[in-house]
Amino acid sequence: MSRVVCVTPNPAIDVTYRVPELTPGASHRAADVLERPGGKGVNVARVLHALGVPAVVVAPLGGPGGRWLADALADAGLPVRTVPVAAATRRTVTVVDDSGAATALNEPGRPLSQAEWSAVVAAVTEELAGAAALVVSGSLPAGAPDDLLPRLLAAARAAGVPAVADTSGPALLAAAGAGPALLKPNAEELAAAVPGATLDAARRLLTLGADRVVVSQGAAGLLGLAGDEVWRVAAVPGLSGNPTGAGDATVAALVRGLMTGAPWPDVLADAAALGAAAVLTAAAGEVDLAGYARFLPTLHAERVG
Amino acid sequence: MSRVVCVTPNPAIDVTYRVPELTPGASHRAADVLERPGGKGVNVARVLHALGVPAVVVAPLGGPGGRWLADALADAGLPVRTVPVAAATRRTVTVVDDSGAATALNEPGRPLSQAEWSAVVAAVTEELAGAAALVVSGSLPAGAPDDLLPRLLAAARAAGVPAVADTSGPALLAAAGAGPALLKPNAEELAAAVPGATLDAARRLLTLGADRVVVSQGAAGLLGLAGDEVWRVAAVPGLSGNPTGAGDATVAALVRGLMTGAPWPDVLADAAALGAAAVLTAAAGEVDLAGYARFLPTLHAERVG
Repeated sequence: MSRVVCVTPNPAIDVTYRVPELTPGASHRAADVLERPGGKGVNVARVLHALGVPAVVVAPLGGPGGRWLADALADAGLPVRTVPVAAATRRTVTVVDDSGAATALNEPGRPLSQAEWSAVVAAVTEELAGAAALVVSGSLPAGAPDDLLPRLLAAARAAGVPAVADTSGPALLAAAGAGPALLKPNAEELAAAVPGATLDAARRLLTLGADRVVVSQGAAGLLGLAGDEVWRVAAVPGLSGNPTGAGDATVAALVRGLMTGAPWPDVLADAAALGAAAVLTAAAGEVDLAGYARFLPTLHAERVG
Repeated sequence: MSRVVCVTPNPAIDVTYRVPELTPGASHRAADVLERPGGKGVNVARVLHALGVPAVVVAPLGGPGGRWLADALADAGLPVRTVPVAAATRRTVTVVDDSGAATALNEPGRPLSQAEWSAVVAAVTEELAGAAALVVSGSLPAGAPDDLLPRLLAAARAAGVPAVADTSGPALLAAAGAGPALLKPNAEELAAAVPGATLDAARRLLTLGADRVVVSQGAAGLLGLAGDEVWRVAAVPGLSGNPTGAGDATVAALVRGLMTGAPWPDVLADAAALGAAAVLTAAAGEVDLAGYARFLPTLHAERVG
């Protein structure tokens, strides 16, 4: 089976510290130090890998942390196409205390040179030959070129590969104009990029050029637009857990749906089930496959417009 | 000039994040991410280097962070004798907010194998040939051999090199029994290791075998015992700043004093001035040399016993 190319413009090493209680101003001994490959494109690739869908991660990686991340992905059986860059790959630290509260300390992505961004585009273009789909996920480091998403999506179009983008801010609008197969903002990201009611804002992304739009709305489920059809899937009721990474699992299911050509309502229900299965796991990039199997038969998309 | 061998059994990468306000349970974007070589022996070596006293760092280093730390020391002009180990070198994260409050999240040192500890002792033994002094500073990772300090101090004795230890807990008592030239606990570390009043506890370390003992007492200054003489130096009054690393600067001055054979009260006054000069700087391992020059003439040790 040909591969899904998962581009992660802003990868990270996700670090989790466990402390009894986080007290500002105090000194804490971190127990259970956990380090994982992170970044939304990496998470999508890990979920696809868990589903048996071949994927390759393309990411700019630099410094000792970048080498660690490439090694960790390879150890997990995930192919990675590293674009070597001068800037050290960032870390994101999450401090979890005994009450379950999670405090995030996210390093910003360090800027790349324009030549390094061009090398990212060139690596993606090479990987697109014979690929099944392109996924571009996550934020962009400061200083990334405004036309990065359009360049990546144009490369996919030229290669005849369907492209999915999950991003925010100006990059979301730029992506829409490049005619992707699918955009997957969450409701907050959509509201920040396009003023107006959720459905109107999603329709605006179609008008700009996207073939389909899925808006993830947390406990309100998924809204899926294709042409002039609007579908809705309710979320799994009463779900509690770790929502980080649920959007990435949703994207993984959506890209699999585009690849198989399954009916749109079935794709949406599958995406809602896999997103819910991610909430059951402790870490982003993982899904609870038993939970997925339990949720899937209970979810059905209904046409609402 | 021959070198001071600075052993750091538990090195770290010291990371500082600046956030407007640390709020447990919230997500923060860290600005001004700063990474520095850390660990108390590393700090002592950096202060000696700033004073023009040649020093070499001996440390077990592992993983990408260990390589980073070795490179960063070399870039700073500090020789480093790396003992390669399997465990990744730990990180310590300090979150500083706009109020100046510092919240520490310290990873514990990862355990080394007994063979790796023996390699540390062997590396130190080699570096001691022709060395001016040995400094062993800082905590020990869990699982370190009980006799690590005695083995290092015995190697110094065999090489005819004076040895200084700045450690805590059972390692402090074990070090005393091995007959070091000097021990430098702080008052809390001394109280935790030896019950009783500060002066009585310090005398106990002499009885166990240390030639000299200096107890750092923060705003109460330094207490210095040599044979049956007890001296005291007051702290610089009204000093405020960053006390992290003040003890390491104090150790650097003490070891320089042992090397030059300066009179004991002068060594103590010098150590108090250099410790105060460290409080003026933002980071451990640095001293404000202008502050040092300003403080030194104002400090004098008085004999109190």
